[in-house]
Amino acid sequence: MPRYKLIIEYDGGPFCGWQRQANGLSVQEAVETAVTRYCQVEAVVHAAGRTDSGVHALGQVAHVDLPRSDPPDKVRDALNAHLRPHPVTVVRAEAVDEDFHARFSARERSYLYRILNRRSPPALDAGRVWWVGAALDAEAMHDAAQALVGHHDFTTFRAKECQSQSPVKTLDEIRVTRVGEEIHLFCRARSFLHHQVRNMTGTLRLVGEGRWSRADVACALAARDRAAGGPTAPPQGLYFLRVDYPTAATTEEHDPCTG
Amino acid sequence: MPRYKLIIEYDGGPFCGWQRQANGLSVQEAVETAVTRYCQVEAVVHAAGRTDSGVHALGQVAHVDLPRSDPPDKVRDALNAHLRPHPVTVVRAEAVDEDFHARFSARERSYLYRILNRRSPPALDAGRVWWVGAALDAEAMHDAAQALVGHHDFTTFRAKECQSQSPVKTLDEIRVTRVGEEIHLFCRARSFLHHQVRNMTGTLRLVGEGRWSRADVACALAARDRAAGGPTAPPQGLYFLRVDYPTAATTEEHDPCTG
Repeated sequence: MPRYKLIIEYDGGPFCGWQRQANGLSVQEAVETAVTRYCQVEAVVHAAGRTDSGVHALGQVAHVDLPRSDPPDKVRDALNAHLRPHPVTVVRAEAVDEDFHARFSARERSYLYRILNRRSPPALDAGRVWWVGAALDAEAMHDAAQALVGHHDFTTFRAKECQSQSPVKTLDEIRVTRVGEEIHLFCRARSFLHHQVRNMTGTLRLVGEGRWSRADVACALAARDRAAGGPTAPPQGLYFLRVDYPTAATTEEHDPCTG
Repeated sequence: MPRYKLIIEYDGGPFCGWQRQANGLSVQEAVETAVTRYCQVEAVVHAAGRTDSGVHALGQVAHVDLPRSDPPDKVRDALNAHLRPHPVTVVRAEAVDEDFHARFSARERSYLYRILNRRSPPALDAGRVWWVGAALDAEAMHDAAQALVGHHDFTTFRAKECQSQSPVKTLDEIRVTRVGEEIHLFCRARSFLHHQVRNMTGTLRLVGEGRWSRADVACALAARDRAAGGPTAPPQGLYFLRVDYPTAATTEEHDPCTG
């Protein structure tokens, strides 16, 4: 059966997350239902990352095996037609070798966290950002974030429910910048622990408010204790941005700030 | 009674437009209700522009007279507290002289129209953009749009229901640019006719598709006949961006692309 790689964008708000659940509609179920309507077969769609309820994606990557070899653009358009009216869209489809696996072949994952940092709550971006009314120092946040870069035991930033075999991960990059009224936190790693980006963001917010120093962040990391970290930032500010693979078949970055 | 100028952002989706209507919730009613809850008085909130149902605002300007002289930041925060859970937010409040009138003092209004121009429908920006799947030539659209700049009879781009005394207006600027997957249409004038921006946008889309030339746009304008223009673009791509006043008290531009 021919295998297709799908780049998927979604609004996580109405879903219980990527993964199929008994008690709610998941993005996976929406996409699998679209595949079934299109090809009249039951299919499993495997994704690079199992985003939580409320977390958005601009460049989730998935793969699926179809019973026929349609041109990739036809696959994209057909799935999009069957995905309506869900806020899920296949941005691109590509034919790939059968050894491509969206999750296990992934070499690097990138996330964006958007904080709206102004006195007034969001109107147009409600459900799309974390609103923090107190002024945050983005430079201090960026500086403190550098204490997290590298190969570490990230237990301090790991959710209890995390199923990863090891809490040791390598954070390749973390960048905090102010973009108008927003603060953007960009993270890049081979893989992340459950809630890692949200827990790092909630901790760096304390730095942005001047309550924590870079040394406090380094101490929290060294403690290897979730209780030593800051609170978990809410899901609606988080975007699964892109996934890179060892071959040339990398996904384009979809930056919400340049459209 | 002290007068306050309010810069207001809203998601037009759930509303029947700015202006109070018998058959639906308007943004005006939402703001006036917040004023009443805050100050225990009936108040009329006057806006610079009466946006249609579904049209958004990043910088609508309104004024209201309050029965007491609270600091502007307190007015902003109190109105925002009472505006919940509506997707309407007061971005800034300012104390102004009693001769300031949001509508009649306005010297210039700016609108942004966002077209999502890619094969895949919007997911995260559903209700925020006009999705046009066919590739559009933004440069050709920009060039043709220049035929509309200046002092003209804009009957071709005027809704039947328009209440303006005259169809003659001066369009100061129109700029069409590609921003990633989007095409942005920026317009600036002292005032606009009802549906003028949406009708110009629907016409310029024909140019972007290669079906119309710049000369066709000029002919349509010269016809002074709505039937000679292109179709009306839908409301959800339109943003009331900013209003400028003769004094130094201009509003900041809130560009969604830079946050």
